[in-house]
Amino acid sequence: LIERMRQYGETIFAEMTRLAVETESVNLGQGFPDTDGPRSLLEGASRNILAGVNQYPPGPGRPELRDAVSRYRARHYGLEFDPEAEVYVTVGATAGIAASMLALVEAGDEVIVFEPMYDSYAATISLAGGVRRPVTLRRESLSGRFTFDPAELRAAVTPRTRLIMVNSPHNPTGTVFTPAELEEIAAVCRENDLIAVTDEVYEFLTFDDRRHVPLATLPGMRERTLSISSVGKTFAVTAWKTGWVTGPEPLVRAVRTVNQFLTFSANGALQLAIADALDNEGEWIERQRLALQGKRDRLAEGLTRAGFEVNVCEGTYFLMTDIRPLGYADGVDVARALPRQAGVAAVPAKVFYDRQDEGRHLLRFAFCKKDEVLDEAVRRLASWH
Amino acid sequence: LIERMRQYGETIFAEMTRLAVETESVNLGQGFPDTDGPRSLLEGASRNILAGVNQYPPGPGRPELRDAVSRYRARHYGLEFDPEAEVYVTVGATAGIAASMLALVEAGDEVIVFEPMYDSYAATISLAGGVRRPVTLRRESLSGRFTFDPAELRAAVTPRTRLIMVNSPHNPTGTVFTPAELEEIAAVCRENDLIAVTDEVYEFLTFDDRRHVPLATLPGMRERTLSISSVGKTFAVTAWKTGWVTGPEPLVRAVRTVNQFLTFSANGALQLAIADALDNEGEWIERQRLALQGKRDRLAEGLTRAGFEVNVCEGTYFLMTDIRPLGYADGVDVARALPRQAGVAAVPAKVFYDRQDEGRHLLRFAFCKKDEVLDEAVRRLASWH
Ligand SMILES: CSCCC(=O)C(=O)O
Ligand SMILES: CSCCC(=O)C(=O)O
Repeated sequence: LIERMRQYGETIFAEMTRLAVETESVNLGQGFPDTDGPRSLLEGASRNILAGVNQYPPGPGRPELRDAVSRYRARHYGLEFDPEAEVYVTVGATAGIAASMLALVEAGDEVIVFEPMYDSYAATISLAGGVRRPVTLRRESLSGRFTFDPAELRAAVTPRTRLIMVNSPHNPTGTVFTPAELEEIAAVCRENDLIAVTDEVYEFLTFDDRRHVPLATLPGMRERTLSISSVGKTFAVTAWKTGWVTGPEPLVRAVRTVNQFLTFSANGALQLAIADALDNEGEWIERQRLALQGKRDRLAEGLTRAGFEVNVCEGTYFLMTDIRPLGYADGVDVARALPRQAGVAAVPAKVFYDRQDEGRHLLRFAFCKKDEVLDEAVRRLASWH
Repeated sequence: LIERMRQYGETIFAEMTRLAVETESVNLGQGFPDTDGPRSLLEGASRNILAGVNQYPPGPGRPELRDAVSRYRARHYGLEFDPEAEVYVTVGATAGIAASMLALVEAGDEVIVFEPMYDSYAATISLAGGVRRPVTLRRESLSGRFTFDPAELRAAVTPRTRLIMVNSPHNPTGTVFTPAELEEIAAVCRENDLIAVTDEVYEFLTFDDRRHVPLATLPGMRERTLSISSVGKTFAVTAWKTGWVTGPEPLVRAVRTVNQFLTFSANGALQLAIADALDNEGEWIERQRLALQGKRDRLAEGLTRAGFEVNVCEGTYFLMTDIRPLGYADGVDVARALPRQAGVAAVPAKVFYDRQDEGRHLLRFAFCKKDEVLDEAVRRLASWH
């Protein structure tokens, strides 16, 4: 293994799911739903496979899907993208992130990332030979939301800064960046001529009156933002591994140049079915949003009863909790012990930070599960404690 | 785009397929069949999707598929791999190749490749910051096969050589390396402590009495070879994007470390169906082999009649032809003109060489097409000339 990747082992999600399976735990670690996507989506994919849509689609994606992505970005956000040149299909958001980093980050370039950060950001920046500059999201005591200090963001910029990675709705904190927060980021990008790469996979999983605002909608940002999203979270089919990158042609072309040699293309039969669902399953998305909001409240209430301090969750399907009220300090230790001791798996947030002193006491729980599964987890956690 | 990738544009396959579509040409360029895989495979995938196999499989792959891969490598080649630690599922062979190069090649490391070489080898070596050392396969006038000069292979080794990339059955020449050729390669690997990465995606598409011999079966090679294969060519489902890497645990672990951040996992529903097909569709594979052999002969005969010089094809579904008997010298020019002039698309072999003076007059035709499609292509080419 090349030297700069030696610090990476198995992903925390793989480790925790394995532990969960071994101990027959309720798995609230790795984020995946235990119910299925829209029936029309599954039936569409299944029909396409049987009908023979089984040979290479165009590397950039089936035109039907690129059109549908272009349409939904216009419908929801007023963003216009040319489906030919400005929309590109990848093997899930993960491949979109990897291709973006590998295409845009030269050895020694700096990348600003908000921590806690989804693990693939750190790893793909390393793989590209880049250097991370973390800006820490901290819990604001008044609101209970995780947010950043604009001064810390500004201080992270150096002459070597090449791009900024922005994930909103944010995994694992559940923060949905406000227009004001996004404007702080946009101003830094404009002033320093930075590219923004955005991970928007939870774009439709926002709660209460929050709505996702793409960074690309801010002044001066459309021309410098690569937006990444995917089908997995929106339609509850995390194994479908189909995502898309939208942005200005030169950035999308850079991603294409790299991505065509990473995976060549994504599965074609699924792409066609996803295109239909993006056009026609808006009500399903809305129902899913409301269902997840209820699950958020259900699990938050249960974890609070079980003694955790539960932070505000505005989007995604994760709750960030603090284990200190329970008398624990180290989330990594607790996460490793919990499956065997309590029969529940969670993810320690510590692994998502670069700064050694951050996030020690935070544990992330996924709530994209059946109500009875959430209830069982709470029951187990209450009696564990 | 980072500097070392600026030399790469759209892949030749994408370009030629686009040209073929625009001109309504018979597409014998990009290699994909126009008939489907085994019915049980398609039905299995379709059933799994409807039954709800739609959430993340384990990153390294569904155990059912890793077991099935381990079984077929044992059954066909007598190679034993621990399905847990020595088999790893990727998003097609392309992702396996990319992850292998990115995991194993440090900036400045040299990689020996046989040219003409499949385009992703060159690109992923560049992406890793590696340096290619080409060894040229040339047509042996006596046998009509493309092969290499062992002295040229030995001369390509330097103190910076890290690995050798071996593709057999070989795309685009159609050569299936003989045990003697493989032993030349193995000796160089053993003597210089090199890793071999093998692309074996055409392993079941060999003709006449040729059989594929994995490099890993040669003395001293199992412990230093990463073998890559996939479902796409074997079962005629090129859009399924499911492949596997087999090899000793440390090499497979290196690939996993990188690949988990490139794609995380491949689609789970397809993996289950593929596992069944690998166990049960041996007769289909044999029928496909014979059918393709007939197609090879059909197209070779037709192209010869149309004035091309057709080289020996021992495996894959490609024919390498020489355009000089037709009075042409530049295969790139001919390939670009052919769709509009003749209504047929092919691939110029020149783009697969590093050496500027090699392969100019070679054109590759795919024969994985219905007989009437092959006949129509020949008709068009005969009247073009
Ligand atoms: C690709 S496995 C991780 C799933 C996920 O998005 C999460 O749990 O954060
Ligand atoms: C991934 S597109 C190229 C298909 C192929 O293997 C070929 O035509 O050589």
